[in-house]
Amino acid sequence: MRTVRLADVAKAAGVSQGTASNVFNRPDLVRDEVRQRVVATAQALGYAGPDPKGRLLRAGKVNAIGVATAEPLSYFFDDPFARVLMTAISAACDARGAGISLVSAMSDERLAWNIQSAVVDGFVLLCIEGGTRLVELTRERRLPFVALELGSNDETVAGIGIDDFGGARAAAVHLCELGHRRFGVLGIQFVDDHVGPVTPDRVETAIYSTGRDRWQGYRAGLAPYGVDAGAIPIFETENEPKSVREGLDYLFSRPERPTAILAMSDRVALCALEWFAERGIAVPGEVSIVGFDGVPEAARATPPLTTVEQPIAEIGRRAVEMILDGALPEGRERLPVRLVVRGSTGPPPA
Amino acid sequence: MRTVRLADVAKAAGVSQGTASNVFNRPDLVRDEVRQRVVATAQALGYAGPDPKGRLLRAGKVNAIGVATAEPLSYFFDDPFARVLMTAISAACDARGAGISLVSAMSDERLAWNIQSAVVDGFVLLCIEGGTRLVELTRERRLPFVALELGSNDETVAGIGIDDFGGARAAAVHLCELGHRRFGVLGIQFVDDHVGPVTPDRVETAIYSTGRDRWQGYRAGLAPYGVDAGAIPIFETENEPKSVREGLDYLFSRPERPTAILAMSDRVALCALEWFAERGIAVPGEVSIVGFDGVPEAARATPPLTTVEQPIAEIGRRAVEMILDGALPEGRERLPVRLVVRGSTGPPPA
Repeated sequence: MRTVRLADVAKAAGVSQGTASNVFNRPDLVRDEVRQRVVATAQALGYAGPDPKGRLLRAGKVNAIGVATAEPLSYFFDDPFARVLMTAISAACDARGAGISLVSAMSDERLAWNIQSAVVDGFVLLCIEGGTRLVELTRERRLPFVALELGSNDETVAGIGIDDFGGARAAAVHLCELGHRRFGVLGIQFVDDHVGPVTPDRVETAIYSTGRDRWQGYRAGLAPYGVDAGAIPIFETENEPKSVREGLDYLFSRPERPTAILAMSDRVALCALEWFAERGIAVPGEVSIVGFDGVPEAARATPPLTTVEQPIAEIGRRAVEMILDGALPEGRERLPVRLVVRGSTGPPPA
Repeated sequence: MRTVRLADVAKAAGVSQGTASNVFNRPDLVRDEVRQRVVATAQALGYAGPDPKGRLLRAGKVNAIGVATAEPLSYFFDDPFARVLMTAISAACDARGAGISLVSAMSDERLAWNIQSAVVDGFVLLCIEGGTRLVELTRERRLPFVALELGSNDETVAGIGIDDFGGARAAAVHLCELGHRRFGVLGIQFVDDHVGPVTPDRVETAIYSTGRDRWQGYRAGLAPYGVDAGAIPIFETENEPKSVREGLDYLFSRPERPTAILAMSDRVALCALEWFAERGIAVPGEVSIVGFDGVPEAARATPPLTTVEQPIAEIGRRAVEMILDGALPEGRERLPVRLVVRGSTGPPPA
């Protein structure tokens, strides 16, 4: 592709070459509306700026990625998993001098416009919930995108996932090997906006594959040890403190208290550790717990949390590379996970 | 200001009205270069989109703020202070449906272009270091900006600061009231790229006002208790673990060990707590420590950290409002801070 010149920018923006030059060299001479238009046009065309040293932009590229989610923007900074992922995405962008636009697409109208108007080379979608609509809208934009945490089994979507099933199975096997036979499960969203006890049947047909696959992994890990997965109490949380506390109230008010909790995220498990500490329930003396994700807070918890560690940094780095290098996978790549055994798991009470 | 219409966008972008309409309604029909140009132009002009429900943009506004720093982008996600501030900025943007572009301006060439090309209504500058250049470049762009953590006493820069002097004085008074008389100071950057012991004289003439003002606050707090500030060992850190450890090695290898540490950031103080724990030095039994900032990690530390709490959430919210409402302060606003006493401070050893 040929290099974009100032003349191209001027023509596309509908200004004289002198005005375009002023925008970059004597910005004080140019009205701000004109200036904004010329700069936006320069970006869209991939103009590298007036300084030869400034040729950081490749032709036709704006050298920025959009990171979009159906959550509020604050999710990027206050969710432990999102923070680690964004740190990795940032580091990959820093290495290439690329910028990041954060896009929140909470309501449908806003969703469409925000995705449509972001000045970026492609999108990383943090799907969590609302992923299907986010993918549809991003497809319309016809820019490269990579879906993370897609939560569906649509294998036609270019994305990076993990081995949810294998990780969950390893967590269950670890607890069985320690001698546990009475379990409780704290799930993350299986369907939209539901909090409360759920039956295994319902989880098997959950619309979000993340929770479903993790449940199936637990079940597969427990079966060889004679644990009847059909009898395990499961509580669906919203992956935040209030519903996790409700879930623990439920699990620990039943006639047979569990000796081990399988939590589908570290965030859920960390909330549970607080709940146990408040009630003086010893971990792992009275109850063991395994999380999922491998966020930094898990290693620093009291006691440090046994968890299934995702390669979060690698996921972020690869997503950025796929977009900026235009090397998208055909469907979903799945990266391996590993069980990290720490202080929150031990033998059940005698 | 009159409403921007599709016809205005088409004209400015140099395309027919039919093509412009297709960009928003039948994007599959439009070549991506053209599409990007039209959307960028629409943004620059403040076009509200084809859907009446989508009129989230005000005329002439793109409804996005840029947050710029001279640090790498990863700073936004891995620095505890930046994270809390960004959470507040995000929440304020979410409330108005505004987007966020993260701008890193590490090297000079990149700095200029990134600030020049961001499609935003204004900037929040997280100055920390490199603030002067960042302010100069942003001024050239002639968009509204608010400088946070400016680190200089240039009162002509629109910004939000805090009462560094008063907060530091309160920390010193608190320790003196507990009976401490032997102090050590862990400073944050006073000048560029220096790590090591510094004399009070040097701190008094430091180029960064944050560290200088905090030192002067310490001195003012200590004086009434007969503590000679000129004799206090001060170590300049880079606000990260390695240099903090060097600083502690220095402070605790001197003939008179300090019984109290004044740390100029929570990040520094939290590193120090780890260093003490590794060496079995009891806090506050053998040494007390006070941080600065009030990040959430401070409350969760072992022991919980006594610190000077900044109104971080309020700073973020006000910065966004100033930019999106065009209500910039004439110079620097200074918000009050408060001392939060927790478990890391107590009487000195007998």
